[in-house]
Amino acid sequence: MNYKLLGRILGKIMILESVLMLAPLAVSIIYNEGTRNILAFVIPVCALAILGIMAQIPKPTRKALYQKEGFALTAMVWIVMTLFGAIPFVVNGDIPNYIDACFEIMSGFTTTGASIIPDISVISHSSLFWRSFSHWIGGMGILVFVLIFIPESNDGSSMHLLRAESPGPQVGKIASKMKVTARILYLIYLCLTALEVVILLCGPLINHGALVADGYASYEGNKFFHALLTAFGSAGTGGFGFIPNSLEYFTPFAQYVVAIFLLIFGCNFALYYLILLGKVKDVFKSEEFKTYFITVVCAVSLVFISLITKLSTVGYSLEEAFRHSLFQVSSIITTTGYTTANFDIWPEIAKAVLVILMFTGAMAGSTAGGIKMSRVVIAVKGTYVNVRKLINPRYVSKTKFEGKSLDEKTKNDVFAFITLYVFIILTVVLLLSFDPSNHDAEHGFFSNFSASLACISNIGPGFEAVGPYSSFACYNGFSKIVLTFTMLLGRLEILPVFILFTPRSWKKA
Amino acid sequence: MNYKLLGRILGKIMILESVLMLAPLAVSIIYNEGTRNILAFVIPVCALAILGIMAQIPKPTRKALYQKEGFALTAMVWIVMTLFGAIPFVVNGDIPNYIDACFEIMSGFTTTGASIIPDISVISHSSLFWRSFSHWIGGMGILVFVLIFIPESNDGSSMHLLRAESPGPQVGKIASKMKVTARILYLIYLCLTALEVVILLCGPLINHGALVADGYASYEGNKFFHALLTAFGSAGTGGFGFIPNSLEYFTPFAQYVVAIFLLIFGCNFALYYLILLGKVKDVFKSEEFKTYFITVVCAVSLVFISLITKLSTVGYSLEEAFRHSLFQVSSIITTTGYTTANFDIWPEIAKAVLVILMFTGAMAGSTAGGIKMSRVVIAVKGTYVNVRKLINPRYVSKTKFEGKSLDEKTKNDVFAFITLYVFIILTVVLLLSFDPSNHDAEHGFFSNFSASLACISNIGPGFEAVGPYSSFACYNGFSKIVLTFTMLLGRLEILPVFILFTPRSWKKA
Repeated sequence: MNYKLLGRILGKIMILESVLMLAPLAVSIIYNEGTRNILAFVIPVCALAILGIMAQIPKPTRKALYQKEGFALTAMVWIVMTLFGAIPFVVNGDIPNYIDACFEIMSGFTTTGASIIPDISVISHSSLFWRSFSHWIGGMGILVFVLIFIPESNDGSSMHLLRAESPGPQVGKIASKMKVTARILYLIYLCLTALEVVILLCGPLINHGALVADGYASYEGNKFFHALLTAFGSAGTGGFGFIPNSLEYFTPFAQYVVAIFLLIFGCNFALYYLILLGKVKDVFKSEEFKTYFITVVCAVSLVFISLITKLSTVGYSLEEAFRHSLFQVSSIITTTGYTTANFDIWPEIAKAVLVILMFTGAMAGSTAGGIKMSRVVIAVKGTYVNVRKLINPRYVSKTKFEGKSLDEKTKNDVFAFITLYVFIILTVVLLLSFDPSNHDAEHGFFSNFSASLACISNIGPGFEAVGPYSSFACYNGFSKIVLTFTMLLGRLEILPVFILFTPRSWKKA
Repeated sequence: MNYKLLGRILGKIMILESVLMLAPLAVSIIYNEGTRNILAFVIPVCALAILGIMAQIPKPTRKALYQKEGFALTAMVWIVMTLFGAIPFVVNGDIPNYIDACFEIMSGFTTTGASIIPDISVISHSSLFWRSFSHWIGGMGILVFVLIFIPESNDGSSMHLLRAESPGPQVGKIASKMKVTARILYLIYLCLTALEVVILLCGPLINHGALVADGYASYEGNKFFHALLTAFGSAGTGGFGFIPNSLEYFTPFAQYVVAIFLLIFGCNFALYYLILLGKVKDVFKSEEFKTYFITVVCAVSLVFISLITKLSTVGYSLEEAFRHSLFQVSSIITTTGYTTANFDIWPEIAKAVLVILMFTGAMAGSTAGGIKMSRVVIAVKGTYVNVRKLINPRYVSKTKFEGKSLDEKTKNDVFAFITLYVFIILTVVLLLSFDPSNHDAEHGFFSNFSASLACISNIGPGFEAVGPYSSFACYNGFSKIVLTFTMLLGRLEILPVFILFTPRSWKKA
């Protein structure tokens, strides 16, 4: 391992985090939150800056990164970001327990959106901003962001980082000119986020009357702040709420806008690049896009029909049933986790559809989590190839994916990935079942299973005890640490985290 | 497709089934059950015999079977066996609905043990015998049995059949001399079953006092009959009950005996062959055996400890807690499904352990279902190899399994299998969720999930609505058909069924 180079890059990340934390610090000052809240951000900002600069002093002898170093570094970066990012919550007292705070900010960076805060209404503006902002930072990847600033090496170092951090089975052609590409991707990301904020500001955002009627405070006077946080949460497909009950008290207009933007952020960003290049036709040639589109249409229809048959039970009008179907499918398939309704009480069909979407996730190369649509398509095609080979052992596969022939390695990697994904989900369920705090009637296997799935797929809410109207506060410290790592495993697609914790990675080559 | 040869082999199977059905017919005569019950078996016996003999008339021009034909035939055989095997239940009125009857007997042949009979005490002796006997027939495979009787071809036809029907990732060396091997395996199977019957007869079997105290009829005077059915159900790892509440009213002696025999039948039968050859040391060299053994010990310990901490809630003595832990782990890991206690009310740890065992199953080459221990070991080792390859792309794997180096194809086939397994479970959950009969509070996602898992892994009982004290009667016809196919998919390890229903298989080569 090239410790000096690793330290140097890690230091750069720390400086970056220090700079990023100036934003919530500014929020704290604007809202005049008092010394303690301001100090909560000043301390980590200074600590990160000092440590980050110190890490630049040793001169690395070798400037290239091996693949294993790239992977290990990626996992390390996310852990360091989390350890420092959790400090403000502890200092300002919003989340006094450090483990809880780490859970919360890891949930932020990994764009999971699972929260351990039982009552969101007592949290300071700066903390709310930092939580949602962490979604936006984590959505596109921390390292991709750094790639823009570090000098490009021509030995593939940056490629290793991008491979480790980018969701999906392969880094597409778009990554050939790394630095340019990263800039374009961030620009698209930034513009789409800004567009969402602007559109949200054009109409009514929150139904303050209903909030007050239900005994909550009114949140008027913060419209821009709330539009911004909403956009951060949707762009990163994170899903932290910042007023009671997630997006339930948002106006129908705002709910439709967010639903559409979620679907947009669930698309591979390379498609927008294609649109910029004027190759709109190519977008509709993408198999993954077609699968994503068809899945959304089918899922919304199924959920909608299941809700219609139970309108009296769930108490929705026809329009509400459609809106909640559209919103919840968008929110779950993109692994965001915003909610407009308590889907835990929905009919079984709706729940089964949502659980399956929790596995699949949206497109590779988007900000979404899960297995990714492309892997699902490859697994289905791979199974077809396997059956054909059994029928005729001399069969030579001509099966293609996205225009290229589906090679054995891609196929086998996908099968291996999905197997590992399921093994981890089951292992986490077993570990969570040790938690003595969850042996009541409301907290059964489905709670733990959905918590495990919601964390590895970076969704946020699950069902039953961790349903849309609950939080992860019901778990004990050990379970929270397990779930924190599960979120990281999901966000980095497992292997980089494994490599970080494999002793052999650290041996001299 | 070589239709004439397929018809000929299928005909032989039908003659075999006709002969096997003479046994329940004899039971019906012995218990003097009246014309209708006797007719219930006479009709299918005659029909099968006539159709089977007619199928022998056309002379096949080609005597060899292609691999695809072997696979398709295997799936066909099981479906035909089920369609005819269901007839007695409908004729004698024990299960008036033909779909239900098919579910029940498919559950028997596939050694699942899931039942749609709500009240077992009203079922005739001959039906009870036929159900349990079907476990014994299905346990070792119907085709392997036939192999003993058909002339051995030297072109690998029988190998294809054995491959399609034998559980586990590969047919071991034991299969080199097919016909001899099949005979030895059946002899071991027969002897172990007989041994279990004898041992069960040495002690008290059923606690008749407790049965009567709980308002049920006494079952005295049927001891040999019950010992035989118990042994059929354990040898095939099936698990159909024949008195109320499965094995709850069995004496502790009988419960311990069955638990031990279940673990014995969960071992690869090749190991007993090794013991017969005096190679006892080789048994303990088997990685799969070691994994199986350690898994059982760990699972029993975990379940036992979890029960101890909740002794007052579950109401067991220390001995009962141990006995139920041992029994339930044995029953679930071998995918039998016999129960001595309502594990649905057990603590979360116990439930999580049981769900994981429902996935893994026992050893390949046993009568158990599930993914199989060997596949789990290969998947774990395969993941290690994949991580090592990421750390060092030039890494050449020296990883071994059972003494042989773990080749890429075996590893990839296992990953593909597990992925497919999970996809099918989720698809079945979605299909089950359409069932309008299951929208009450007791019948949620976990019910459907465990029903799907219990059927593909050939276990029988699941949790909640399909828990140990319930039956599959709560599902409608469509769901039952789906679950019937799921059991077959599980028993034949998916691909043969896929091949049967792939139109391309039927094209001329």
